Amino acid sequence: MENDNNRRKFIKNVGMGAAAIGTAGLAGVLSSCKDQQKEKAAVKEEPKAKTIEWKMVTTWPPHFPMLGEGADNLAKWVDEMSGGRLKIKVYGGGELVPPLGVFDAVSQGTAEMGHGAAYYWAGKAPASQFFAAVPFGFNAQSINAWLYSGGGMQLWEELYGKFNLKPFVAGNTGVQMGGWFNKEINTMEDFKGLKMRIPGLGGKVLAKAGGNAVLVAGGEIFTNLERGVIDATEWVGPFHDLKMGFYKAAKYYYSPGWHEPGTALESMVNLDAWNALPDDLKAIVEAATYKSNMWMLSEFEAKNNKALKTLINEHNVQPRQFPESVLKALKKLSIEVLEELAASDPMSRKVYDSFLEFQKNIYEWNKVTEEPYQKLKYL
Amino acid sequence: MENDNNRRKFIKNVGMGAAAIGTAGLAGVLSSCKDQQKEKAAVKEEPKAKTIEWKMVTTWPPHFPMLGEGADNLAKWVDEMSGGRLKIKVYGGGELVPPLGVFDAVSQGTAEMGHGAAYYWAGKAPASQFFAAVPFGFNAQSINAWLYSGGGMQLWEELYGKFNLKPFVAGNTGVQMGGWFNKEINTMEDFKGLKMRIPGLGGKVLAKAGGNAVLVAGGEIFTNLERGVIDATEWVGPFHDLKMGFYKAAKYYYSPGWHEPGTALESMVNLDAWNALPDDLKAIVEAATYKSNMWMLSEFEAKNNKALKTLINEHNVQPRQFPESVLKALKKLSIEVLEELAASDPMSRKVYDSFLEFQKNIYEWNKVTEEPYQKLKYL
Repeated sequence: MENDNNRRKFIKNVGMGAAAIGTAGLAGVLSSCKDQQKEKAAVKEEPKAKTIEWKMVTTWPPHFPMLGEGADNLAKWVDEMSGGRLKIKVYGGGELVPPLGVFDAVSQGTAEMGHGAAYYWAGKAPASQFFAAVPFGFNAQSINAWLYSGGGMQLWEELYGKFNLKPFVAGNTGVQMGGWFNKEINTMEDFKGLKMRIPGLGGKVLAKAGGNAVLVAGGEIFTNLERGVIDATEWVGPFHDLKMGFYKAAKYYYSPGWHEPGTALESMVNLDAWNALPDDLKAIVEAATYKSNMWMLSEFEAKNNKALKTLINEHNVQPRQFPESVLKALKKLSIEVLEELAASDPMSRKVYDSFLEFQKNIYEWNKVTEEPYQKLKYL
Repeated sequence: MENDNNRRKFIKNVGMGAAAIGTAGLAGVLSSCKDQQKEKAAVKEEPKAKTIEWKMVTTWPPHFPMLGEGADNLAKWVDEMSGGRLKIKVYGGGELVPPLGVFDAVSQGTAEMGHGAAYYWAGKAPASQFFAAVPFGFNAQSINAWLYSGGGMQLWEELYGKFNLKPFVAGNTGVQMGGWFNKEINTMEDFKGLKMRIPGLGGKVLAKAGGNAVLVAGGEIFTNLERGVIDATEWVGPFHDLKMGFYKAAKYYYSPGWHEPGTALESMVNLDAWNALPDDLKAIVEAATYKSNMWMLSEFEAKNNKALKTLINEHNVQPRQFPESVLKALKKLSIEVLEELAASDPMSRKVYDSFLEFQKNIYEWNKVTEEPYQKLKYL
C-alpha cells in the first residue's frame, strides 16, 4: 500500500471516518444526515428460531484496517456463535449516520449497536475520555485490568447507562506513536506556536504548552503537513502511519505516544435492544467483545514493528524519542488538564479518582514486573 | 486467607494439582488412576436441541484461585453462550485423572477437554514448552501477539494435532515473581549448591548455574523451606504466594520472574470431539478461551499488587530485584538450554525459530513503546 495511488485511495477513504476527524466541533455534521431516523430492531419470525437483525454504526471508514475490521469481526463472530440468530449489519462512518453521530444514534435506537472510541463523546459525557485514552494514563494491559477487574467497567456502565447505552471494551491500539514533526522537539519552547493536528485531551495539553491544536479532516492531513499549513500531526502507529504516507511530508517521527499510551476501542449497545436479547445472545455479544479486544491488540503488536522497519529501511525514517525533560513538562500539564476536567464534572471526578487509585497500584506492581521485563532485552 | 488454618487448608488443596508438582518425573502417578478408562462424549437427545456433555480435566486443584477458576469460568461461559447445549463438567486434578494425566486423557478421549499449561507436557512434546513459558521469553502481551497474530497458534496446532488435540490459549499469569530465598543472591556463586524448587526450563538453567533444581509437591514446599530442606522456591506471584505463607519461611522475595515472564495457560480439546461439534459451538468454545485469556491476566494484574502490599506492610517482606549481572548470566545459560532443546527435537527447532524471529521484532517495537511507557511513571 505504499505507492501513491494506494495512499491517495486510503486517505480518501479515511476522510469518511472519525479516526480522521478529531473529537470536537463536528456536531453540525450530525443534523445533515438523511438516514438518521429512529428505527427499532427488526425481529423476523423464523419457523424454528428467531433471527434478530441489528445495525452497527461505526466511527470508522468502512472496513478501516484494524479498527473497522474489529467492528466487522465482532459482527461475524456473533453471527457464527449464534448460528445466525443475531445478524449485525455494519455501517462505516457516514454510511447510515455520520462518524460522530454514532453515540446519539445508538442511544436513540436508530442503530442497536455502535463501535468507536469513548473519547469521541467528550462533548456529551466528559468522563467518557477516561475509557479510551488519557495522556500519561494506562497502557493496554493496565486499562484492561482497571476495566475488567478494577471497577472501571462498572463506572463506564453507570456513565453510559444515563444515555440508554451499555458499553463494552472492544479493542486496543497498544502504545501509540507521538507523531510526525517538521521541527525537532528538544525543549518545551519548541511547542510554542507549533501547529499540530492532535485532538482531545492531548490537544488541550499542547495548547497549555503554547501550541495550536488544530482540527484537520483525515483526508487533508497529508497535504496540510506537506505544504506547511500544519507543523506536525499525530495519528496511530507505524502500520496506519505508513499507509498515510506521512514519511513523505514530515522529517521526524517521535515516540512514545504520551497522549495515547494504550487507547481502548469500544462497542456499545442500545439498552432496550440489550434487554430484549435472550441470555445466550447477551453472553455471545459480550464474549465477542473480549475476543475482539485480544485480537486487535495482538494484530497491532504484530504488525506495527514490521511497518516501522519499512519506514526505517525503505523510507529513511529515523524514529526519535521525546527528551525526558519534555515528557516531564508534558506530564505536569496533562495532570492540570485532567484535574480541570475532574473539577468541571462530578462523574469525571468519580472516574478519575478510581483511575488514579488503580494507576498508583499498578505502577507499584509494574516496578517489579513489566519494568524489569523491559530491561531483559538488553542483557 | 493469611491465618495459619487457612494456609494449611490451601496448601493441602494445592497438593492435588500440577501447579504444585513440577513438570517431570510424575508419569508413574498416571497408571494409578482408577478412573482412567476411555469414555466417549455422552450425547443426549433432547426434544428440541441436542445437549452435548463434556468432561474437562484440569491440572489444578479444584477451583484453584485464578487458574482453576479460569477452567470453571470457561465451562460456565460456554454453557451460557450455548444456552445449555454444551455442558462441560470440570474436574480438578486427581478427581478423574491425575493432574499430569490431562494431556493423555484428552488425547485418548477419556475427557473431551483439558485445562493446564503446555510446559507440563515437555516429556511428551518438548516443543510444548514454548507455548507456556520460556526463560527470558515473552511477557503476556507479546506471547499473545505471537500466538494469535504471529504464527504461533498454527505451530501449536501442528504440534498438538499429532496427539489428536486442538490447543487454545486460555489465560496468562503476567510476569511472575522470581521466588523466595533464604540466601541473598548477589552473584552467580550464590546459586552453587542452592537447593531450589523450580521446575521445567528454569530448573535446567539453575542446574547449569550449579544449583540443585528439586521437585517438591506443593503441600510440602512450605515445610521444606521452613526446615531448610530447600533454600528457595518459586511459585507464581504475590496473590498465590501470600496464600502459601512463604513469607514465614523465607527471608528474601526476588523479582522479576526471569524463568516465567508471562506464562500462558492452555485449554485443549480432543480433535474427534471438536470435529463433531456444530460450527456455532466451535465458535463459542474458541471465544470463551479468548475471554478467559483476557479475564485471567486482568485479574492477576489487579490482585497481585494488593497482595504484594500486604506482604510488605503486614509481613515485613522486602522485595528485591536480581542484580543485573546475575540476570545477564542467567540469560546466557537460558539461551544454552533453549538451543539444546532445539537441537534435540526438530519441532522444537521449528517453534524456537519462529519464537526468536518474533522476539527480535517485538523487542524493537517495545523499545519505542512499552519500554518508554514504563519510564513515564517516574517523571
